[in-house]
Amino acid sequence: MGARDRLAELGITLPSVATPAAAYQPYRVTGSLVFTAGQVPVVDGRLPLTGKLGRDLDTEQGIEMARVCGLNLLAIAQEVSGDLDRVRVVKLTVFVASDPSFTEAHLVANGASELLGEVLGDHGVHARSAVGLCVLPKDAPVEVEAVFELVD
Amino acid sequence: MGARDRLAELGITLPSVATPAAAYQPYRVTGSLVFTAGQVPVVDGRLPLTGKLGRDLDTEQGIEMARVCGLNLLAIAQEVSGDLDRVRVVKLTVFVASDPSFTEAHLVANGASELLGEVLGDHGVHARSAVGLCVLPKDAPVEVEAVFELVD
Amino acid sequence: MGARDRLAELGITLPSVATPAAAYQPYRVTGSLVFTAGQVPVVDGRLPLTGKLGRDLDTEQGIEMARVCGLNLLAIAQEVSGDLDRVRVVKLTVFVASDPSFTEAHLVANGASELLGEVLGDHGVHARSAVGLCVLPKDAPVEVEAVFELVD
Repeated sequence: MGARDRLAELGITLPSVATPAAAYQPYRVTGSLVFTAGQVPVVDGRLPLTGKLGRDLDTEQGIEMARVCGLNLLAIAQEVSGDLDRVRVVKLTVFVASDPSFTEAHLVANGASELLGEVLGDHGVHARSAVGLCVLPKDAPVEVEAVFELVD
Repeated sequence: MGARDRLAELGITLPSVATPAAAYQPYRVTGSLVFTAGQVPVVDGRLPLTGKLGRDLDTEQGIEMARVCGLNLLAIAQEVSGDLDRVRVVKLTVFVASDPSFTEAHLVANGASELLGEVLGDHGVHARSAVGLCVLPKDAPVEVEAVFELVD
Repeated sequence: MGARDRLAELGITLPSVATPAAAYQPYRVTGSLVFTAGQVPVVDGRLPLTGKLGRDLDTEQGIEMARVCGLNLLAIAQEVSGDLDRVRVVKLTVFVASDPSFTEAHLVANGASELLGEVLGDHGVHARSAVGLCVLPKDAPVEVEAVFELVD
């Protein structure tokens, strides 16, 4: 079963690639690698939740927001490849806006990691860093960037 | 018009590559990729401004400091390539020292992004992440790292 | 003298690759590049120290913890290459859990950088970013990720 079928089975419709909030592009390709811009959990152009984990949002909400970031990364993967089965995830970096007492950035990050695994199968398995930031642009709760590989 | 002419038109003289503050090098080349060290806005060996955005510095000052980081990245690009027209910017990561209430890291980051566009033209267009950090080395207000591609 | 001899001379026994705390893998290979997951200073599955630099830990303790992160990166390098002499360090990103007043992330990061230099020699020389984070997963004091290159 390919990525397209898994998306259908999961009932997921990919969004459009989010328009960057500033002077940059959503992704750049170099050789077989794709470096993406950091994706915040925008849905139809707005952030459904803002604020910091451990203060304004709980871990479950953070996981859901990280999943939306993952969805926005998949939109990039689709656009750059034309075929999600040609995309392998190499690395994610997950920035979690956190109260200094919040020590579960790695659990929040799973929201993105697990979505990529569900949709891309073996190609979704990646290395990852997850860290707690004091604040993100526009008070977003999570920001996720990826390095993808385009495969034949 | 090439990068050298644009630098002249902008009245920009590239600085020397900044000496790292610790046990590392300013950049490493692997294949056609160049990974740089994080550049803080040093000018002639010192930071003209220190502190956190949203507390000690305002957004305009942050933009100016990010622009200096971009200048230091261009110095690396010149040194590694010998010819700025051979350098394409793939990715920037912009770390902005921020008060937890400061939600404009993406605007600060434009200081670096726009300089690279002004000097490198189409080759300056990049993917980017911008995040708010609680503190940076030596109390620097901004730190920017890049992935460059060397092109023929 | 190769990396194996230098490890022996330093009295270092490489640990096993640490099991990720969540839904990801310790590293992924793409072409000649290896992207690692962020490594926290786990020793035998637990963190010997937790908390933030400048509040709970001093710079010396941070350096020691960064060195353990470097050791965990070497374990990955050994596993992925089968021969440490085939591994070149391209880039480190060092995330230091910091009180907002702690401005020595670059000194803490030297704990990882210097270990890699001691063990890998010229191949251990890398570009680096070091930044202060408000909090890390499981209250780890330091997290370090690497980009390695596999050489012949």
